[in-house]
Amino acid sequence: MLSLTAVLVAVVCVLIVWIFKPADRSLQKKEREPETRPWVDEDLKDSTDLHQVQEDVDEWPESEEDVEHIPFSHTRYPEKEMAKRSQEFYELLNKRRSVRFISNEPVPMEVINNVIKAAGTAPSGAHTEPWTFVVVKDPDTKHKIREIIEKEEEINYMKRMGQRWVTDLKKLRTNWVKEYLDTAPVLILIFKQVHGFTASGKKKVHYYNEISVSIACGILLAALQNAGLVTVTTTPLNCGPPLRMLLGRPPHEKLLMLLPVGYPSKEATVPDLKRKALDQIMVTV
Amino acid sequence: MLSLTAVLVAVVCVLIVWIFKPADRSLQKKEREPETRPWVDEDLKDSTDLHQVQEDVDEWPESEEDVEHIPFSHTRYPEKEMAKRSQEFYELLNKRRSVRFISNEPVPMEVINNVIKAAGTAPSGAHTEPWTFVVVKDPDTKHKIREIIEKEEEINYMKRMGQRWVTDLKKLRTNWVKEYLDTAPVLILIFKQVHGFTASGKKKVHYYNEISVSIACGILLAALQNAGLVTVTTTPLNCGPPLRMLLGRPPHEKLLMLLPVGYPSKEATVPDLKRKALDQIMVTV
Repeated sequence: MLSLTAVLVAVVCVLIVWIFKPADRSLQKKEREPETRPWVDEDLKDSTDLHQVQEDVDEWPESEEDVEHIPFSHTRYPEKEMAKRSQEFYELLNKRRSVRFISNEPVPMEVINNVIKAAGTAPSGAHTEPWTFVVVKDPDTKHKIREIIEKEEEINYMKRMGQRWVTDLKKLRTNWVKEYLDTAPVLILIFKQVHGFTASGKKKVHYYNEISVSIACGILLAALQNAGLVTVTTTPLNCGPPLRMLLGRPPHEKLLMLLPVGYPSKEATVPDLKRKALDQIMVTV
Repeated sequence: MLSLTAVLVAVVCVLIVWIFKPADRSLQKKEREPETRPWVDEDLKDSTDLHQVQEDVDEWPESEEDVEHIPFSHTRYPEKEMAKRSQEFYELLNKRRSVRFISNEPVPMEVINNVIKAAGTAPSGAHTEPWTFVVVKDPDTKHKIREIIEKEEEINYMKRMGQRWVTDLKKLRTNWVKEYLDTAPVLILIFKQVHGFTASGKKKVHYYNEISVSIACGILLAALQNAGLVTVTTTPLNCGPPLRMLLGRPPHEKLLMLLPVGYPSKEATVPDLKRKALDQIMVTV
C-alpha cells in the first residue's frame, strides 16, 4: 500500500511536470519576445526551410526540368570604352542620395514601368523571380499607408528600436513623421514571395528569395537614378502584415521594402555624409 | 511515514523530470537539425539581433550624431529623355544572363575598380556601408576556392539540398563542377559585415546588413552588365567559413555571394529561360 501510493504519486507528478513544463516555457518565451527581439519584423523572415521543401517534393512538373540551352550573345566593348562606361556609371550612381523630401509633382508612368521592368531582370534562386512590385498612386491608399506606418514607426522609435538605433538615425534626421508617403506621386512597395505555386496550385519553393528581391531592389534604385527620379530605401518595421492586407496581397508575399518615388522638392536637403573610399571596401588577392 | 515517503518520491521525480526533459529536448533538436534544415548556411544568417544591441548601448560616439544637412543637387531630364533613358537601361539589363562559361582572358582592373565603386554607392541601414569586396586574381587562390566549393557543393547536391532543389537546378544544368572558378580572370567574393567597430574598437550594429549588401550586389551586377562583362550570381552553401579563413577575413564578415567575372567563353550557352512580363510582376493601385 505504501509503495503503491508512492509510485502513484510519482507517476502523477511526472505527468504533471511533463505536461506543464513545455507549456510554461513557450509561455515564457512568448512573453519575453517583445523585449529580446524588439525590432525584428517577423514578416521579413525568409521562410525557405526544409519544412516547406518536404511538402513540395515531386511537385515540380517534370516537363519544366530540361530547358534547352542556346548560344549566349554578348556585346563586347573595346577596353577604352569599358573603362569610360564603367566610370560614367559610377559617377551617375555616386550622385544618388536617399531623399526624404519629395515633390507632389506627378511622374511619367512609362518611366515607372521601365524601371520595374529593369528590376525584373534581376537573377533569382533557380529563376523563381520571387517579386511583386505594388505601385501606389491613389492618394487615399497612400494616406492609409502613411497612417499605418507612422503609427507603427512611432512605437518603433519609442520602444522597440532601443536608444542606440534612434541615436544612429538621429544624424540622418529620421523620425516617424513620413510626409513623403503623402506627397510622393508614387509609392513602390516591394514584396518577396516566400514561395510560389506550380501550375497545379501546389507550393513551389523560392530559394534565397530575400537576397534575390534585394538584388532586384538594387537594380531598381540604379534604374530610378538613371531616369532622374529620387527615392529613399525604407523597411517599415512590423508594417508588413497590415500593408499587405491593405493592398490585398496574398499571405505568401511579405513586404521587404517601400520606396517613395518622385522628383525632389525644391527645398530638399540631404545629410552631408561621405562614402567609404575604394580601399576601404575592396581587397585584392 | 507513508505521506512523507510519497512526498519525497514526488519531489525526486519532479526534479528528475525537470532536469532531464530540457536536455533531452535540446539533444533531440540537435540530432534532427541536419535533417530538418539541410542547406541553410549558418554563416549567411543576419546577426542583427538584440543581443548585439544590448552590448552596444552607448558605444556610438556622440560627436557623430549630428551631420550637417546640405541642399540636394539634382539632375532632371525632360520627360521624353526620362522615357528614353529608362527604356535603354531596361534593354541593356534585359540582355544580362547568368553565364557559367567564362573565358580565361584577363579583364581591365580599372573596370573592376569602377564596378565596385558603383556597388559601394548602395544605400545601407543607418549608412553603415557593411560590405567588403574581395577581388581574387591569384590563380592558386582561385584554385583553392574551387576546391573548397566543389567539395562542399558535391555534398550539398548529394545530401543536403534534397531532390527538389537538385531537380530545380537541373534545368539550369548546374552541378558541383565549377570550372569557372579557375578560368574566370577575377572572382569577386562579397562579404557582409554583421557588425562594425567604433573608433574605440567597440562593436557597432549594422542594421539590415544582408539586405543592404544584396542591394549593393544588384548594383554591381548592373555595373558589370553596363561594362560588357559577364558573371553568375552564386551563394556557395556552407563554404562561408573556410573561404573567409582562406582569404584572411575577420569573423564579423560573412560570405554572402561569389561572382566569377570575365568575358564569356566562345562556346558559352545559356538556358532558354523567359522572364515574367510586367503585368506578372507589377500591380498598380
